[in-house]
Amino acid sequence: MENSKDNFSEWYTEIIDKAELSDRRYPIKGMNVWLPYGLKIMQNIDALIRREMDSRNFKEVSFPLLISREQLEVEFEHVRGFGDQLFWVTKGGSEPLDIELALRPTSESAMYPMFSLWIRTHADLPLRVYQIVNTFRYETKHTRPFIRVREIHFFEAHTAHATYDDAENQLKEYTDVFMKLCETMLISPIAHRRPDWDKFPGARYTIAFDAIMPSGRTLQIGTIHQYGDNFSRHYDIAYADEQGNRNLVSQTTYGMSERLIAALISIHGDNNGLILPPKFAPIQVVIVPIPPVDDIMRAYVEKVKSDLESYGFRVHVDDRDNYTPGYKYNDWEMRGVPVRFEIGNREVRDSSVTAVLRTGGKRKIPASDIGNALSALILEIEEKLREASSNMNSRFAMKCSKFEDLKKENTVSTAFWCGRKDCSDKIETDADKNCLGFVEGSAKSGKCIVCDEPGKEATFAKTY
Amino acid sequence: MENSKDNFSEWYTEIIDKAELSDRRYPIKGMNVWLPYGLKIMQNIDALIRREMDSRNFKEVSFPLLISREQLEVEFEHVRGFGDQLFWVTKGGSEPLDIELALRPTSESAMYPMFSLWIRTHADLPLRVYQIVNTFRYETKHTRPFIRVREIHFFEAHTAHATYDDAENQLKEYTDVFMKLCETMLISPIAHRRPDWDKFPGARYTIAFDAIMPSGRTLQIGTIHQYGDNFSRHYDIAYADEQGNRNLVSQTTYGMSERLIAALISIHGDNNGLILPPKFAPIQVVIVPIPPVDDIMRAYVEKVKSDLESYGFRVHVDDRDNYTPGYKYNDWEMRGVPVRFEIGNREVRDSSVTAVLRTGGKRKIPASDIGNALSALILEIEEKLREASSNMNSRFAMKCSKFEDLKKENTVSTAFWCGRKDCSDKIETDADKNCLGFVEGSAKSGKCIVCDEPGKEATFAKTY
Repeated sequence: MENSKDNFSEWYTEIIDKAELSDRRYPIKGMNVWLPYGLKIMQNIDALIRREMDSRNFKEVSFPLLISREQLEVEFEHVRGFGDQLFWVTKGGSEPLDIELALRPTSESAMYPMFSLWIRTHADLPLRVYQIVNTFRYETKHTRPFIRVREIHFFEAHTAHATYDDAENQLKEYTDVFMKLCETMLISPIAHRRPDWDKFPGARYTIAFDAIMPSGRTLQIGTIHQYGDNFSRHYDIAYADEQGNRNLVSQTTYGMSERLIAALISIHGDNNGLILPPKFAPIQVVIVPIPPVDDIMRAYVEKVKSDLESYGFRVHVDDRDNYTPGYKYNDWEMRGVPVRFEIGNREVRDSSVTAVLRTGGKRKIPASDIGNALSALILEIEEKLREASSNMNSRFAMKCSKFEDLKKENTVSTAFWCGRKDCSDKIETDADKNCLGFVEGSAKSGKCIVCDEPGKEATFAKTY
Repeated sequence: MENSKDNFSEWYTEIIDKAELSDRRYPIKGMNVWLPYGLKIMQNIDALIRREMDSRNFKEVSFPLLISREQLEVEFEHVRGFGDQLFWVTKGGSEPLDIELALRPTSESAMYPMFSLWIRTHADLPLRVYQIVNTFRYETKHTRPFIRVREIHFFEAHTAHATYDDAENQLKEYTDVFMKLCETMLISPIAHRRPDWDKFPGARYTIAFDAIMPSGRTLQIGTIHQYGDNFSRHYDIAYADEQGNRNLVSQTTYGMSERLIAALISIHGDNNGLILPPKFAPIQVVIVPIPPVDDIMRAYVEKVKSDLESYGFRVHVDDRDNYTPGYKYNDWEMRGVPVRFEIGNREVRDSSVTAVLRTGGKRKIPASDIGNALSALILEIEEKLREASSNMNSRFAMKCSKFEDLKKENTVSTAFWCGRKDCSDKIETDADKNCLGFVEGSAKSGKCIVCDEPGKEATFAKTY
């Protein structure tokens, strides 16, 4: 790597190019090509999400990409919120279309006309679906791979419930799912209740999950929304209760995107490149045979590989003969492979492998119990990464008790805040930090750092 | 089912609605909602394709949906072929875009500008990638779920090779992959070399795979194309050979779509609904407990289920208490679940299950060896389905030796043909059948059924 991670922005761009995650040279702004290695990491994240949602009895669906202007404009607040960010299809062949079609920015207006058909009685509730699809935003700001793009790899769950309380419980379940995902990713974002002026268009309230990035800025990597009947009112989504009365449903959504991969690679990487959490690494262990390589070594390597595969590990043997071992070590380190096994004559002789951990450390392990040995190494790596990401959070976090503290650059500031916009505006103007909202679940209270009125714990930071 | 399969068109629509494969009520023509059950079948097909391509060392990528007019117009013949079928994005927010963006109809013009950057020397070849994405056609014809839609669930593989011969070999590999997929799907399409006037825009030649549907019409379910240097010439995709000379690459593609699911459900279904080939069935075995259900029975059912799952089978227990067993039998038959296990008091007592095959037959099997017993039943079902689909092919196939034979309705006609367009035009006009092209691999020859000139074996049929 040419750039140190201290220059995060340059480091980030370099690692995306070098590790071949995404090709930024596609000739349309904000639209990049998913390269095999990057796509595989994303698919590993998706697979975990699918498993989790399926186990909770959510059903996967896939809705059309295009949404007619009529569908969209049913809910005015929502479309207004997205108004400037919609791509519009206006022609089919060389003819203008009768009605303009938007590329989905998210799927409320695609799904809810169908929910209105699907839901008849209380027996149809709760309705809980999700999809993993491409969504689109006509971003005018500076774009950046995985962080701000115009075609987004997107996850969205949508539910409908008989009561508002049921919807509230759904939000709790979302939080569990999200926190579990983040634990597996070995990161710890902070949950915030967004200020009203920053909630999702159409939501009663929004809880967002913000990851602290190595630049000291935060990245919103997940959101959950309580809609109440804000949408069901407009899309006429109602059910007959046991007495035969018609009631509007309460709705929720839960969204995530390719920003998950942005957080994953940014938080864990180092000056030598990526470090992939083992559960998401396309290659969990790379085996590098040390020349001279003879048939006996080849057979030994093959045996180690198939033993590992029988345990379910993802293994790659780097047998390229036009590269030195040293080159290969650097290459796979840069690509973040968690464990490297070096196999030379000595290892063949004493039936062992030399294991090198991407998080540091080297040790000889016997081939006889290779599966369990690798499992132990992986646990060790996961623990290291968890600790490192938690340390990074602490490094940037700063509890502020006076206004001047907020001005410290590259910090994620916690302070008491009254909840009023003019106070957060003042922080934005004078301290150049955005208000992320109240820290969800925090019971702490104190005087607003701006106006001295009663306040609760809130976070202020520069955001992506 | 209200409709017999003899009324194929009505039957097809009914089963899509009843088995909840796709919701046709989405408010945009030709765009339907993938419902959970239909999506799962498609994902099972996709998983098999991925496994096959990955094992052959193809790399999965994902390119942007949008293609600029500039990118598209590099290859004139290609864009002309799609001209009337493109959806165009012309606005971002309320502003017109500087350059119009097409929704990909297929990805040549998205990928090849990047191929031109990726390929430098012979060491970069062969380049072999694939993606599974949504593509778009502005169809003006009558649309029909999975068969003719405007948003298409699409698979496309693209390769670049040093020589034309290498590209020819790639086409052979595609054929192997496709035939293997069809064997797993238990169907036997026919391969045809499409007439020149019907080949893919930009291809040197096209081989298409046509499945015979229960209506006697054929459905093109896969295509492979030899591009030679038709695209590399325009997109400047060249490599330096070992002597340092710059040569254009030869290219191929291989495409399939959600028509695979159309063929799967149409060919195997019957008057009671779907019959899903076990490898693609979201539920391979459904267990129906027969009331009265007590705790002992519940525990027994749970044991059978977990035994089956330990073998890797996809199992569902239908424990709904507001439906009779009879209702459940019909329901799961309609949804095409290959095997049903009925478990009543008798089965609990003698530690067995009563197995009912969707293809007919009922037998008692001991619970002690349930995994192997189910494997055997599945093989039996697969054999039945293979035989039935092959019989259906024979029923519609007709070898024609005189022109009048071609006029027989609902037949897939084989005849000798000289290869000239005026002869196939005459067949189209007078016998109302399209020319699918020469039967690929057939060495048979004889006099053209229209003009008596020397000809080769070709197929004529009504097509979707």
